[in-house]
Formats: sequence, structure tokens, C-alpha cells
Amino acid sequence: MLNEASEIRPSSALGKQLVIELYDCNDARFDDIKWIEDSMLQAAREANATIVTSTFHKFSPIGISGVVVIAESHLAIHTWPEYKYAAIDVFTCGDVLDGAQAVRVLSERLGSQRHIISSMDRGLEGHRVGMVNRTLSGAGAINDDSPTLRWAIGSEQGGAR
Amino acid sequence: MLNEASEIRPSSALGKQLVIELYDCNDARFDDIKWIEDSMLQAAREANATIVTSTFHKFSPIGISGVVVIAESHLAIHTWPEYKYAAIDVFTCGDVLDGAQAVRVLSERLGSQRHIISSMDRGLEGHRVGMVNRTLSGAGAINDDSPTLRWAIGSEQGGAR
Repeated sequence: MLNEASEIRPSSALGKQLVIELYDCNDARFDDIKWIEDSMLQAAREANATIVTSTFHKFSPIGISGVVVIAESHLAIHTWPEYKYAAIDVFTCGDVLDGAQAVRVLSERLGSQRHIISSMDRGLEGHRVGMVNRTLSGAGAINDDSPTLRWAIGSEQGGAR
Repeated sequence: MLNEASEIRPSSALGKQLVIELYDCNDARFDDIKWIEDSMLQAAREANATIVTSTFHKFSPIGISGVVVIAESHLAIHTWPEYKYAAIDVFTCGDVLDGAQAVRVLSERLGSQRHIISSMDRGLEGHRVGMVNRTLSGAGAINDDSPTLRWAIGSEQGGAR
């Protein structure tokens, strides 16, 4: 069966990946592994994800890495407390998951003042990347009314829709 | 200490993320969770990663999600056997990890005939995305001699280096 499957092509993206940079993470618990894990799990739940498993690791002297595997793919975080910065990915498939809500939860709990988000379609024959840069005026207050689309770049190669 | 840290700005990317699309994955074990996990762990080892932990999950009726947390960040995979497609991320920090070798291992073991790779710098004030599209003539034979840089887009906002 696998040998025949390559004839089938997806007509739309199979997955969507939010690539999130959270800056100025001012919460005092930013290097507390339990706080980070709880935040990621809460973000997954509030985004309507079905949590499969999670694993978090604290590095010495500072920094945390963690992943929440969800039925809809995964959420991952890596933190650099020395820069008050967190790199987060929210990878989803299907239409159930509310990625923006995951960003809201994480931004608020980590006390982030600014973020950059890019969105990538995954699994198309071409490859499209869009980027939205939203600067926050206060922690957690994501300005959904006026996202500024900075880039929306189409692949030159055929196949992307 | 955390309150003072935002004054410190990284002068180069803190992390590098390879976003990898593997198409035409012809290996008969493509929906075998043990094969996929072994492949991801081997890719991590051959890329010089220090493995912290891993978690893999098989979905019903088909499809696998898995993450390898490494000291240098993570490797993640999601498979769509019905399209013979795997979405892979290799997120690294530091200079130790050989991401291209991870791609080579995975491409060969999964029997992929074609892939698209994009590379993202993470943690800069700006945000840079480069994309390399390499089409393979045979499984595992990554053509390192002639990568075609398709996009290399600089952020318009200050701060990116």
C-alpha cells in the first residue's frame, strides 16, 4: 500500500506551524521548570489540544527545554533566561487547535512584552511561509485587531496552493 | 536578576531550526513506530547530539509523532503515511550539532526521494528565514555540492544581524 501512496497528493497543507519568539519574559518564574511545564500544558488545553504526553528538562545553570506531544502534533519550548527569551513552536494538524490562544496563554504566563510569530504551512509540494510581527504594549495583551502581515511569500515552484 | 537581563541582547542567533519536508518516503517500515524512533535516535547520535529523552506515539489507524529532546534542543517528527510524507524539525543551539547529517540519516532510513529544507535563525530581534530546496535523485543521496538557495530574506526591522 505504501508503494502506491505517492500518487496521492494533499490539496492543502497537512500541518501548520507557528514559530513564536517571546521576548522580555519578565515573570520571575521564567526559569522554574514546573511553571514552564504547567504553562505549556495550560496552553495546550486552552488551545483545545488533546495531550498525549509531555517531557521537560532543566539545564544547568539555567534554561529549560520541553515538549508536549498532542494528538494534533506538538508544542515545544526552549528558554534562554539570560536573554529573557523563549523559542516556542506550535505544530498542529486539523482545524481543532487554536494556536493563537496557545500564544496568548504563554505570553501572559511568561510575562512577555513582545513577540514575533511566523506561520508555516507544512506538507505541501511547495512551501509557504508567512510572518506576522506583533508588538505587545503589555504582557499578554495580544493585539489581534491589527496584525501587521510583514511577509507572505509564495513558493516559485509549482504545487503550492 | 531576571529583571535586568532584558538589557542583554544576543549578537547572533541563539538557535537554528531546520524545517524539513521529506516526501516519497518509500521504506516499508515508514509506519513502524520502532523504526521511526530508532531512526530519529540514530539521526540525533550521528549529528553529535546528546540525547536527554524521547517520546513517540502511534496514532490510529496510521501516523506517528515523536520528539527527541537533546541537550542542544530537539528533533521532532510527524508522519502522514497516506502521503508518504514526514514533517521533521531539527532545532539546535550551539555549534556541535550537524543538522545536515541528521537529515541524511533520516532521508536514507525513511527512503525519501525528495525533500525541502528551510533554515530559520531563532532568537534574534529580527527574524531570518532561508530556504534551500534540494531534490534528490535517489534515497539518501543528498546533493550537498549544489544547494540552491531559493530565499534568503532579511527582516526589515532593526536588530537582525
